[in-house]
Amino acid sequence: MTELTATLTTLALAELHGSLADPALESMNFLNEVAGRYPEALSLAAGRPYEEFFDLADIQRYLNRYERYLTEDRGLSAAQVRRAFFQYGRTKGIIHELVARNLSVDEGISVDPESIVVTVGCQEAMFLVLRALRRDERDVVLAVAPTYVGLTGAAKLVDMPVLTVAGGPGGVDLADLTATVHQARAQGLRPRACYLLADHSNPSGLSLDLPTRHALLELAEREDLLLLEDNPYGVFASSPEDRPPTLKALDTRHRVVYLSSYAKTGLPGARVGFVVADQLVANGSDGGSDATPSLLADELAKLKSMLTVNTAPIAQAVIAGKLLTYDGSLVKANEREIALYRENLARLLSGLAQAFPADSGVEWNTPSGGFFLVVSVPFEVDDALLETSARDYGLLWTPMHHFTQDPQARRQLRLAVSLLTPEQVDEGLRRLTRLIADRLG
Amino acid sequence: MTELTATLTTLALAELHGSLADPALESMNFLNEVAGRYPEALSLAAGRPYEEFFDLADIQRYLNRYERYLTEDRGLSAAQVRRAFFQYGRTKGIIHELVARNLSVDEGISVDPESIVVTVGCQEAMFLVLRALRRDERDVVLAVAPTYVGLTGAAKLVDMPVLTVAGGPGGVDLADLTATVHQARAQGLRPRACYLLADHSNPSGLSLDLPTRHALLELAEREDLLLLEDNPYGVFASSPEDRPPTLKALDTRHRVVYLSSYAKTGLPGARVGFVVADQLVANGSDGGSDATPSLLADELAKLKSMLTVNTAPIAQAVIAGKLLTYDGSLVKANEREIALYRENLARLLSGLAQAFPADSGVEWNTPSGGFFLVVSVPFEVDDALLETSARDYGLLWTPMHHFTQDPQARRQLRLAVSLLTPEQVDEGLRRLTRLIADRLG
Repeated sequence: MTELTATLTTLALAELHGSLADPALESMNFLNEVAGRYPEALSLAAGRPYEEFFDLADIQRYLNRYERYLTEDRGLSAAQVRRAFFQYGRTKGIIHELVARNLSVDEGISVDPESIVVTVGCQEAMFLVLRALRRDERDVVLAVAPTYVGLTGAAKLVDMPVLTVAGGPGGVDLADLTATVHQARAQGLRPRACYLLADHSNPSGLSLDLPTRHALLELAEREDLLLLEDNPYGVFASSPEDRPPTLKALDTRHRVVYLSSYAKTGLPGARVGFVVADQLVANGSDGGSDATPSLLADELAKLKSMLTVNTAPIAQAVIAGKLLTYDGSLVKANEREIALYRENLARLLSGLAQAFPADSGVEWNTPSGGFFLVVSVPFEVDDALLETSARDYGLLWTPMHHFTQDPQARRQLRLAVSLLTPEQVDEGLRRLTRLIADRLG
Repeated sequence: MTELTATLTTLALAELHGSLADPALESMNFLNEVAGRYPEALSLAAGRPYEEFFDLADIQRYLNRYERYLTEDRGLSAAQVRRAFFQYGRTKGIIHELVARNLSVDEGISVDPESIVVTVGCQEAMFLVLRALRRDERDVVLAVAPTYVGLTGAAKLVDMPVLTVAGGPGGVDLADLTATVHQARAQGLRPRACYLLADHSNPSGLSLDLPTRHALLELAEREDLLLLEDNPYGVFASSPEDRPPTLKALDTRHRVVYLSSYAKTGLPGARVGFVVADQLVANGSDGGSDATPSLLADELAKLKSMLTVNTAPIAQAVIAGKLLTYDGSLVKANEREIALYRENLARLLSGLAQAFPADSGVEWNTPSGGFFLVVSVPFEVDDALLETSARDYGLLWTPMHHFTQDPQARRQLRLAVSLLTPEQVDEGLRRLTRLIADRLG
């Protein structure tokens, strides 16, 4: 510390919140830092949407479309329209009816718009749900492994332990889920919910089949557990017309809290996501024991009023305009992206099959869509190997050990297909093949 | 509960996080609910900016201005500009240099742009700071009474007790602040920071004089306390050229964490705020004991990455465009608003003086700017009186008891001058005069 800084106010990290010293955070920092140091490397790491279709003029087009909707379809005066764009808005959001329509059109999910809270990306939605469910030190959340780091991070912020449930080749190991719940209860803990992605999971790429979805819903009912279904990638099925219903679409008893984001399907720069929370809360708002139950969405909105007040109306307006432009369908809005990601995934799968014969010791899974797939290799995949790959091979990917404690993951890497052109995917695969071949000797 | 809802998943409020049963939340709900039930009532309650100057075309103008800045001043390629607007952005924000310039131009505050975190309004900034400072059950935050409800709410989300410090006529009672710190320490608590608005406070309307600012900074240094200075209203001084420096401008030792919002000065619908956190954190990011300290801003950014990931780039772009349009000055950008609020405040003050002679028992303070003033009356000001005022007199205002436990506040009400025209302020004052006269008999 220099003379100058010695006179400045200095806090000790050990005196700040424990999440700041958490290894999960260091993971993200490390991965971003490597990517930053090798900007020219091809990225099979980033789960960001493809950029070549971005068009600045779309922003004004979408804002205009939403303005027209408010004026013509909703009958708002010019002053009311200005207020909707400029002023503080409703805590639960101003585009909830359009979100509900989108869920109906694309997902066959039918929900009351009042059960939707529009959030600052899915990340805020996860935080709100976990904050609500973490009452005291007994409350824990379960998460299917390997687990999206955003969930782990949100749980850290509310000091909520995450108990890992095995994923396995089917996406979720139901026997392990039941055992984990029972074991937690035997220890005096309260497992409140289980988090998972049923479609094209991040990071595994896996999707649940229909029987597993039904069985999972039955399990949740039997064990009195909520399911936190996160679905940012469902739209990107390789065959959008032929995909199993989401858990929420099958959820007759409101066991599922449905989370999603328009970051991949709408526009990342708008930071708009949402949560559907149509569960009832007894003794809600007005406190009386025989009062009408409130919606969990309304309780989440109260937390949001203390966290971000509301999601930027201008950002919501951009997403609303995109939804309106494509008749409520993000499958329709993303036709080009869906085709590109499908092409990239197909090239990656066929390229892997060409490069690595059955006896090579190299294996991979076969996702039915989405951004990710996982490759298993017969040697250790650690951060040093990523560094080597970036420096000597010009290729970025993600070591799977960042997403799970499972020892198997120490020999796995995640590939993402969303940011590159098909030609870049081919080149990326050539570089990966060389890296693996050099490693196998 | 009906037959139908009996089969639905139901949670007990008592099993959810304690903040959801907090009286502070009920306050906000009640106030919003009354306002919602009497939409025709004149509002001397809402601290929202004036709406008549809103112009939808400004949004595109501001977006274009920021695009030009990125292209011409920053030398970004078209692809890089598109990425800046559309893609996920830097966690600490993308407009930090412009925020730093704004602080220099309008406030004489000189800070490293790297010490700024752009947030989803000031509310997220408060949450991040309190989350960082609340390590365990010993950590408490102090707040000058009467206290902005947003601070109270953010503290609830991290289960952090708020210890009240008397405000008094000068804005902060320094003796009480010292006593509160000592008392807390004697109880084994760790007072981490003291929250206050030094300029045109919400809800009191008061500002600190210059000697008090210096004394407060010395006290903070002596007691090893951070000051959380929230400054959304400083720009709205009745004489913008003649106002005392902010605490941050006087802060040679980085004792002040400076929070602000562009909701009042920029555009509420963008939901952009920020925090300046130039304190050092020892044993930060890289952990070694002789490692270079990190900035508190970088630690807050780590928390933000788990909360909202980043503030919508599109919303930041709108604010950036407004800053650029007015050469970095929000005083300049708000010339019309400043004149209007000054006029409204002057009318309110002269009208009160005309209506209530010195022996009437009705008193009020004399803010030097901002949105708020406080009226004291010789009878109880409770929620029932607000209901009567809204229903029978067509006038909304805010009972001060919602902001403090101070018994004096039970005879006080807050008036806001931001949302109405001068003529509406006159009419509002006439209605208030009638209400008070009827009450005085």
